[in-house]
Amino acid sequence: MNVIDEIKKRSVYVDKAIGELLPITEPVELYKASRYLPDAGGKRLRPATVILAAEAVGSNVNAVLSAAVAIELVHNFTLVHDDIMDKDGIRRGVPSVHVEWSEACAILAGDTLYSKSFEILSRIDCDPVRVVKSIELLSGTCAEICEGQWMDINFENRDDVGEHEYLEMVKKKTSVLYAASAKIGALLGGASDEVADALYEFGCLVGIGFQIYDDVLDLVTPEQILGKVRGSDLMEGKKTVIAIHAMKHGVKLDIFGSGSATISQIDEAVKILEDSGSIGYANDLAMSYIQRGKAKLDILDDSEAKDVLLAIADYMIERAY
Amino acid sequence: MNVIDEIKKRSVYVDKAIGELLPITEPVELYKASRYLPDAGGKRLRPATVILAAEAVGSNVNAVLSAAVAIELVHNFTLVHDDIMDKDGIRRGVPSVHVEWSEACAILAGDTLYSKSFEILSRIDCDPVRVVKSIELLSGTCAEICEGQWMDINFENRDDVGEHEYLEMVKKKTSVLYAASAKIGALLGGASDEVADALYEFGCLVGIGFQIYDDVLDLVTPEQILGKVRGSDLMEGKKTVIAIHAMKHGVKLDIFGSGSATISQIDEAVKILEDSGSIGYANDLAMSYIQRGKAKLDILDDSEAKDVLLAIADYMIERAY
Repeated sequence: MNVIDEIKKRSVYVDKAIGELLPITEPVELYKASRYLPDAGGKRLRPATVILAAEAVGSNVNAVLSAAVAIELVHNFTLVHDDIMDKDGIRRGVPSVHVEWSEACAILAGDTLYSKSFEILSRIDCDPVRVVKSIELLSGTCAEICEGQWMDINFENRDDVGEHEYLEMVKKKTSVLYAASAKIGALLGGASDEVADALYEFGCLVGIGFQIYDDVLDLVTPEQILGKVRGSDLMEGKKTVIAIHAMKHGVKLDIFGSGSATISQIDEAVKILEDSGSIGYANDLAMSYIQRGKAKLDILDDSEAKDVLLAIADYMIERAY
Repeated sequence: MNVIDEIKKRSVYVDKAIGELLPITEPVELYKASRYLPDAGGKRLRPATVILAAEAVGSNVNAVLSAAVAIELVHNFTLVHDDIMDKDGIRRGVPSVHVEWSEACAILAGDTLYSKSFEILSRIDCDPVRVVKSIELLSGTCAEICEGQWMDINFENRDDVGEHEYLEMVKKKTSVLYAASAKIGALLGGASDEVADALYEFGCLVGIGFQIYDDVLDLVTPEQILGKVRGSDLMEGKKTVIAIHAMKHGVKLDIFGSGSATISQIDEAVKILEDSGSIGYANDLAMSYIQRGKAKLDILDDSEAKDVLLAIADYMIERAY
């Protein structure tokens, strides 16, 4: 099975539905600014997971398509606002919304995406008890994402960030929305609370594993594949699992937080982190999260969708970038 | 009946419930930033209206208190983000959130308020069909508020804004949230769709009347009562109903959009706008909106809450500031 093809099969529906559920109406420029990032691409991993979770519990894409769109728009809302806060000028290979328009417009485009997400989700044709549960989960998840972003911003000014805190931040900033995608797909697909909760746990564990492995890739992937400067996390002084492990074991890296470094300095730092076991430790930790996540799907009957969800989990730590 | 006292009676519940439903938890500083503006005061007109609408259809404060809090938090969310966009440094007599913390923190505090609003509303103990309807209305209203703010920002750079467009902007930026407050109180209080829709129309018309009268007050109220520079709308070149009427009738004002003016220049401009009938026109228009709004409440049986809602409508155009 080709994971990318399986995601693509579902994302075709999502792309079409975004155009229908978030049409460009008056004021045209506001809706253009709101649609700009969703239209710029993205893997659609979260909406595909909503659909796969629904399929895995015996439902189908049509029953949950609005929810898949709502979650993709929430994801885009967080990116638009994060880029303003983090002063990131490029996203998905194009200028960020606040660069293309202005900060004021980007705040408003993000707020519009957010508002429309909840409106779209509230209009889904499904048992209202399950709709309310989904909205409660999605709004609570959004609050957690804010908490995670707040923690991330504040970690920059601290030297005493521990592994537990880092994982808590990663969980909130990255993995809870993936977890909510899986659970909402299951909930709206008619699953029991037990199955829906298992899908949440699956998404949460796999999402954390993804982020830890992302930090590994930042160090071990050749630049031409990575598409950005290798070792950027080290130069920025980012408190990843690797950096925290190294610090805990007394490893000192001259380039940590230095802002820049030569290729040979980065090679040397990576060698030190390999020798200290820090990279291996992070790699093993990522694997263990993925394995624990996959085990949560034992509760599901066998299906093609279940196989795709398991393959997505493996893909998280098999991808080269 | 003293309108302010009647609002106050209900806002006591709201103030207490905000503390319970939006507690200051980890990360403490994020929740402090989120609670800062709600705790800084405000008339609580919207949540009081949620409660009054519920009472007017035979329900009570306890049944709709979470919804009242959710709407007050949405209102505060819009203020926090608007102040960043409009670069307003003071709100409710204290420094704005982005001044007290930073723009990044204010974006995040606003997003947190927004997320919590929907989480709180989704957790209300009420028929789930009515909860979903309320969430659909509130999220759609939030999208309209974004549209209104976008229009307001863009009007600054245009000279051809007509009365119809101005009223459309005012409706979206200001009155739809007041209308949603009244309708959600009715919906969750068990009203029929017909009654709930009438309460929406009441809120919408009265809200527009309020804003038109606000523009009149900016010109005719002595500064010591107004609490800000009189005629600031004129100096900023704001396209109010008054300014649009004057322009349409060939009235030229030297200080319009000039950024500053002496007291005698403002007095002179007000005299010109009185002579051209522009102020009188706006005053009459505000009154007619209030009267049309009040008439929508004919659908309700007599009650104390109905009387308070009617008195609030009158208060909109009787207040001195």
